[in-house]
Amino acid sequence: MKFSRRFARPFAMSLVAIVAFMALPAAAQDPLPSWNDTASKKAIVAFVSKVTKPGTPDFVPISHRIATFDNDGTLWAEQPIYFQFEFAIDRIKLLSAGHPEWKTQEPFASLLEGDVQRALARGEQDVMDAITSTHAGMTTEAFERIARDWVRTKRDARFKRPYISLVYQPMIELLNYLRANGFKTFIVSGGGVEFIRAFAEDAYGIPPEQVVGSSGRLKYQMRGDVPELLKLPAVDFVNDKDGKVVGIQKFIGRRPIAAFGNSDGDLQMLEWTAAGKGPRLAMLIHHTDATREWAYDRDSHIGKLDKALDAAKQKNWPVVSMKDDWNAIFPKQ
Amino acid sequence: MKFSRRFARPFAMSLVAIVAFMALPAAAQDPLPSWNDTASKKAIVAFVSKVTKPGTPDFVPISHRIATFDNDGTLWAEQPIYFQFEFAIDRIKLLSAGHPEWKTQEPFASLLEGDVQRALARGEQDVMDAITSTHAGMTTEAFERIARDWVRTKRDARFKRPYISLVYQPMIELLNYLRANGFKTFIVSGGGVEFIRAFAEDAYGIPPEQVVGSSGRLKYQMRGDVPELLKLPAVDFVNDKDGKVVGIQKFIGRRPIAAFGNSDGDLQMLEWTAAGKGPRLAMLIHHTDATREWAYDRDSHIGKLDKALDAAKQKNWPVVSMKDDWNAIFPKQ
Repeated sequence: MKFSRRFARPFAMSLVAIVAFMALPAAAQDPLPSWNDTASKKAIVAFVSKVTKPGTPDFVPISHRIATFDNDGTLWAEQPIYFQFEFAIDRIKLLSAGHPEWKTQEPFASLLEGDVQRALARGEQDVMDAITSTHAGMTTEAFERIARDWVRTKRDARFKRPYISLVYQPMIELLNYLRANGFKTFIVSGGGVEFIRAFAEDAYGIPPEQVVGSSGRLKYQMRGDVPELLKLPAVDFVNDKDGKVVGIQKFIGRRPIAAFGNSDGDLQMLEWTAAGKGPRLAMLIHHTDATREWAYDRDSHIGKLDKALDAAKQKNWPVVSMKDDWNAIFPKQ
Repeated sequence: MKFSRRFARPFAMSLVAIVAFMALPAAAQDPLPSWNDTASKKAIVAFVSKVTKPGTPDFVPISHRIATFDNDGTLWAEQPIYFQFEFAIDRIKLLSAGHPEWKTQEPFASLLEGDVQRALARGEQDVMDAITSTHAGMTTEAFERIARDWVRTKRDARFKRPYISLVYQPMIELLNYLRANGFKTFIVSGGGVEFIRAFAEDAYGIPPEQVVGSSGRLKYQMRGDVPELLKLPAVDFVNDKDGKVVGIQKFIGRRPIAAFGNSDGDLQMLEWTAAGKGPRLAMLIHHTDATREWAYDRDSHIGKLDKALDAAKQKNWPVVSMKDDWNAIFPKQ
């Protein structure tokens, strides 16, 4: 104790001095280098400056700086189909040896042939149920390992990159920028919560407890004297559209002051966020860059952006044009 | 810019120096002054020292330092009945003018007469449904205001203190101690999540997004052009017994390394926590002090502690005796 008391204070002081010294040049750097100097970036910076300025009516205490992000199409790509669908198709192929009946049973037959559009044409619920069934019958820990491996190793057809690297560099910078300004960042996604948790901390710096998503039912049981959580083949909660607002209340319990989405499934989350008192940022990502990524909106089967685009125009929510506002799409490899 | 760049660094350095100076005497103080120097306190300090020591096999990175706490009987008192039941009875009395049928309809009739035991004797589910119905039919924001006011103003019959002040001082110190050591602290309670959120941040420093509890169903709707979340009279999730482990996975997504409970409803959470790899702390609070608080365990209607007490003995989980291990129960008023 004598040693530590004698040396602790000078050591602590020199350490914090170093940290303060290192922090200063960083503050002068542009925290959003992949964002062009357009209206979108200005809207973000103006909002953050406003809510973090103490002593003003717009100041928001740190505990209320909640920002929510959709995942598919907002934080990473989602074309030609949601990556979790690709994952599920791989699962179905892997498990099909034990399920000869799938060759003639829809939607498995279409999915095994890789024809997702045909599978979806029969109704999204069937596909969701099929996906849920391929994600079940194992413990949560076994599933996490499988999903974790898949997003890191499986490469997409067009960019030939592992799925985990198809995240948007400007959004990573935005997440970091918000967190550096006291925000707590959450994913609020229609995707499966345990699928997203398998990579969200590595990809985005978002820990499992800050991921809100759709979920299947779970069963707690003992295997011998070892407790385990089994994933059941039944949907428990669909975190999409109205469900996103319900999910925010269930899991976060506080209305966000900033929300980011890219499709009609995010409309209610943006509406709910924007309708709160004080400064709010509700922002849409618009996929406008067919060369570097994809271009789609009102007629897309995946990530349809129609009503939310009209709402954004009507309510003056900033709309990010990926083509014009971002000078990089994916992180450098 | 010239001004701020010139003065920013010396200002930042003097500020952090002040913070470092202030922090040091605190580090030498006992962080758990309301805990007697008995085995319980030693077990807590030994565990925290172990998992926070870098370069050792037992070291746990900060992102994995998850600690979960039951609420009723673990963080605040729960006798003679759960405080949320008292709250619900007050709601039923308030609403009874508009419900003359309750005078003869159980469990409302018994609850209106204040006879909770008779109400519970008919089955806990009936009482839960009655409580859920009195918590519904309003927005989440309206409910939060009502609950927030009630815990701050209503006083309990025995101690004549507002319910919010019937929290355990030693547990507040424990929460602070864990957080000072990089832990993220969560409530995992069978109580209603929105009831607990109405006071958890003020009472325990636990923000809404770190409260896991039982919940009712919600409906997102527009009132004119204002979106709102309506509480429906239907149970959505019961976060008790097995449900606590399911709730931990659903809401937190990571297994705790420390868990604290006081009744058989917490057994599975403690089991799940203790079964993980590496150092674990599963701890029971045993109500042994009839003079300063209450004494109850195996035969209690509220907070029954029977199987979990046997499990603790068998598995060597530390059991806190409130009478022997705590030199204070409630915070000074």
